[in-house]
Amino acid sequence: MKVIPLILMGCGGVGLQLIDHIITCRELHAIKGVMLRFIGVCDSRSLVLVNDLSKGELREDALEEIRRVKSSGSYLSTLNYDGCHVIEYPAVDKKLIEVGGLLASSTGLVYIDCSASADTIIILKSVIEIGCFAVLANKKPLTSDIDIYDKLVSCPRHIRYESTVGAGLPVITSLNRLLTSGDPVHRIIGSVSGTLGYVMSELEDGKPFSEVVRAAKQLGFTEPDPRDDLSGMDVARKALILFRLLGGRTNIGNIKVESLYSDLMGPEKMSTQDFLDNGLEMLDDELKKKVNVASSTGNVLRYVCVIEGSSCQVGLLEVPQNSPLGRLKGSDNLIEIYSRCYRELPLVIQGAGAGNDTTAAGVLADIVDLQDLFH
Amino acid sequence: MKVIPLILMGCGGVGLQLIDHIITCRELHAIKGVMLRFIGVCDSRSLVLVNDLSKGELREDALEEIRRVKSSGSYLSTLNYDGCHVIEYPAVDKKLIEVGGLLASSTGLVYIDCSASADTIIILKSVIEIGCFAVLANKKPLTSDIDIYDKLVSCPRHIRYESTVGAGLPVITSLNRLLTSGDPVHRIIGSVSGTLGYVMSELEDGKPFSEVVRAAKQLGFTEPDPRDDLSGMDVARKALILFRLLGGRTNIGNIKVESLYSDLMGPEKMSTQDFLDNGLEMLDDELKKKVNVASSTGNVLRYVCVIEGSSCQVGLLEVPQNSPLGRLKGSDNLIEIYSRCYRELPLVIQGAGAGNDTTAAGVLADIVDLQDLFH
Repeated sequence: MKVIPLILMGCGGVGLQLIDHIITCRELHAIKGVMLRFIGVCDSRSLVLVNDLSKGELREDALEEIRRVKSSGSYLSTLNYDGCHVIEYPAVDKKLIEVGGLLASSTGLVYIDCSASADTIIILKSVIEIGCFAVLANKKPLTSDIDIYDKLVSCPRHIRYESTVGAGLPVITSLNRLLTSGDPVHRIIGSVSGTLGYVMSELEDGKPFSEVVRAAKQLGFTEPDPRDDLSGMDVARKALILFRLLGGRTNIGNIKVESLYSDLMGPEKMSTQDFLDNGLEMLDDELKKKVNVASSTGNVLRYVCVIEGSSCQVGLLEVPQNSPLGRLKGSDNLIEIYSRCYRELPLVIQGAGAGNDTTAAGVLADIVDLQDLFH
Repeated sequence: MKVIPLILMGCGGVGLQLIDHIITCRELHAIKGVMLRFIGVCDSRSLVLVNDLSKGELREDALEEIRRVKSSGSYLSTLNYDGCHVIEYPAVDKKLIEVGGLLASSTGLVYIDCSASADTIIILKSVIEIGCFAVLANKKPLTSDIDIYDKLVSCPRHIRYESTVGAGLPVITSLNRLLTSGDPVHRIIGSVSGTLGYVMSELEDGKPFSEVVRAAKQLGFTEPDPRDDLSGMDVARKALILFRLLGGRTNIGNIKVESLYSDLMGPEKMSTQDFLDNGLEMLDDELKKKVNVASSTGNVLRYVCVIEGSSCQVGLLEVPQNSPLGRLKGSDNLIEIYSRCYRELPLVIQGAGAGNDTTAAGVLADIVDLQDLFH
C-alpha cells in the first residue's frame, strides 16, 4: 500500500468537496493500493495538525467534523478533535514548512492548495525546495512573478495543477503529453470562462448584453461583482498558466487583456449596483454591433485566450461559426490545441470547466497521479 | 537522470515513427531528466539486442540503420551493428523474457508493443509478471481473453495503452483520471474509427455509400480490403478496451457488432475486387434509407461504440444533429464521456484518431509517463 500524506490548505467549497471525495474514494483507492493520509488542514486563521506526524491521521470522523465546522461558517480553531492540535496564525506558515522538512526526507508529503490566496506562495516555495509535492487548484502561485513560478516548477513532476484551467478537464495533462512526446504546440485558443462562454453564446441569439449579464448573475454564473468576470482577468490568469507551460516567460501585467467594460465603469468609479443598474446598458450597443459584424461574415464572437508563439492575448475574437469554438453553446469550456499532430484540425477538449465537484475531482486525480513518487 | 531501458516489438509504421520521435526528443528529454535507452528492437523474425544489457544501447546511428533497413522492406536480421547481436525466431520469445528477468530486478525495463500481432501476448504476460512495464499501441493483447487481460493489467501502473484508442488522443488518460477521482463514468459514446467517421459524414451529404467507400479507399482512409473497416471489428476492439477499463468483464465475441455489409458479402464469399465493383452498390439503398429516417427527426447517423452500464455495443446510431457527435465532420475521432461531473453535457475529446505520427506520439507520452517508477 502506497501511503500519501496530505496537508490541505483552504477549506472553501473546493477544499471541502475534496475532503468529501477522498472519504468517498477510500475503498476504491485501497483496491488500487493507495491510501491518502490527511495529517493537517488549514483555513485562513489556523492549522489543525495531527500530533503523530509519522503515523497519525485525521480520520473520517475528524474530516466530517471539519466539513461541519467550515460549512457552518466557523473557523477551524473551534475544532476539538482527539489526536490533533491547533496552531494559530502567525505561527502556521512556519509550522507548515517545518512539517515539510520532517516528512520530505522520510515518507514525502503533498501540500494541496485549494485556497484562492497568494499567502500560500511562501509555503509552497519552501516545501517544494526541500522535496515535497504540491497539487494546486489555486491560480495565484502559478501566475505570480516568473521567478516564483520557476521555483515552483523546478521539479516538474512534483507539482500538479490540472484544476487551475478548465477545472477537472484534462487540459494540462493533455498538453503535457503532447509536449513530452515532442509534438510542438504552436497554438491554443480557448474559451476558459464558463461565465463569459455563457454570455457570448446568449449574445449570439440576439439578446442585449445587459440582460444576459443580469441573467447570468441571477443563475449564479458570475462573481458577486460581475466585473470580476467581465474584466477578463480570470481568463488572463488561466492563459498565463498555459502560456508558461508552453515555455512562455512573461508576467500577468504583460498580457494584453480586453475588458468588456470601460475604465470609467471600474469598481473605483462605480458601485456594483450602479454598474448593474446603469453601467451595463451603456455597453449594449457596442457589443451588439460587434456580434453583427461577426455574423455578417459567417463568424461568431467568443471571449477567448489565444496563445501563439511568443504571444498571449485575452479578449473578443471572431471565430468561424462552423469551428468547435464557434459551435460552443452555454457555459462549457472548450480548448482547441494545434500542434504538428493536430495541425489543420485541432485537438479539442470540451466540458464543464467550473464547479466545486469537478474542480475537486481534478485535484484528487492529480494527487493519486503522484503515487509512483511514494514508496 | 532517470534512465528507462526499452525493447521495441514491431517495426511497422508506428514503431519506426516512434524511433524517429525518440531520436528527435533526446535533448528535450535530457532537459527533463529522462533518458530512453533502447536495448533491443524486434520484428516478426528476429531480435537485435545489445551485448551489454546493463549499460549498452542502440545509439542514434544504430536506430537510423534500423529505420533504413525496415523502411526498405528488409528484415532486421540483415543488420550489422557493432555492440549488438541478432537472435532469430523461434529463440526470440525466450530471449525477450530472459532479458526481462535480468533487468526487472535491477533497472526495470519497458516493453513497447507496436506490432499488430497476438504473438506478443505470451511475452507481455511473462515480463509483466516479473515486474517489467509495458506500453502498447497493439490492441490484440488487451482484447484477448479476459483471463489474459487480467494478468496484463494486474499492476495497473505498469501498463499504458493510450494509443490503442483514438491514437494519441488523451482518452484512456482522461478516463483514468475520472475513475481515480471517484467520478463514476456511466456512459461513453464514441466515433473511434476515422474511416467510418468519414464515411458517415459523407453519407450525410447525400452521397451514395458505394461512392463514399470507394473514395475513402482512394484517399488511403481504408484498409486494403475496406470490409476490415466496415465490419466494425476495429471499433469493437477499441470499445472492449474502454469497456474493460470501466470494469466490464466480457470477451470480444460477446460484443454486439453491427457490420455495414451482410454475411453474403464476406471475404469468404466475395473477393475484395468483387465487393468493390458489385457488392458495395447493393448496400446503397438501405443506408440511404437509414440516413433519411434519421434526418427526418433532426438526427444524423453515426457509427459508434456505446458503453453503458453492463452493455457494450457497436454499430449505427442516430444522434442529435446538434450534439458534439452530430456535428462531427470528416475523419476526426470524437468521444463523449458522461459521468457524475459531466452529467447533462459530456466531457468531449476530439481530434485526429489515426496516423503513425500521433499514434507514436501517444506511445512516447506513455513511456515518459512511467518515469516515476524508475530510480
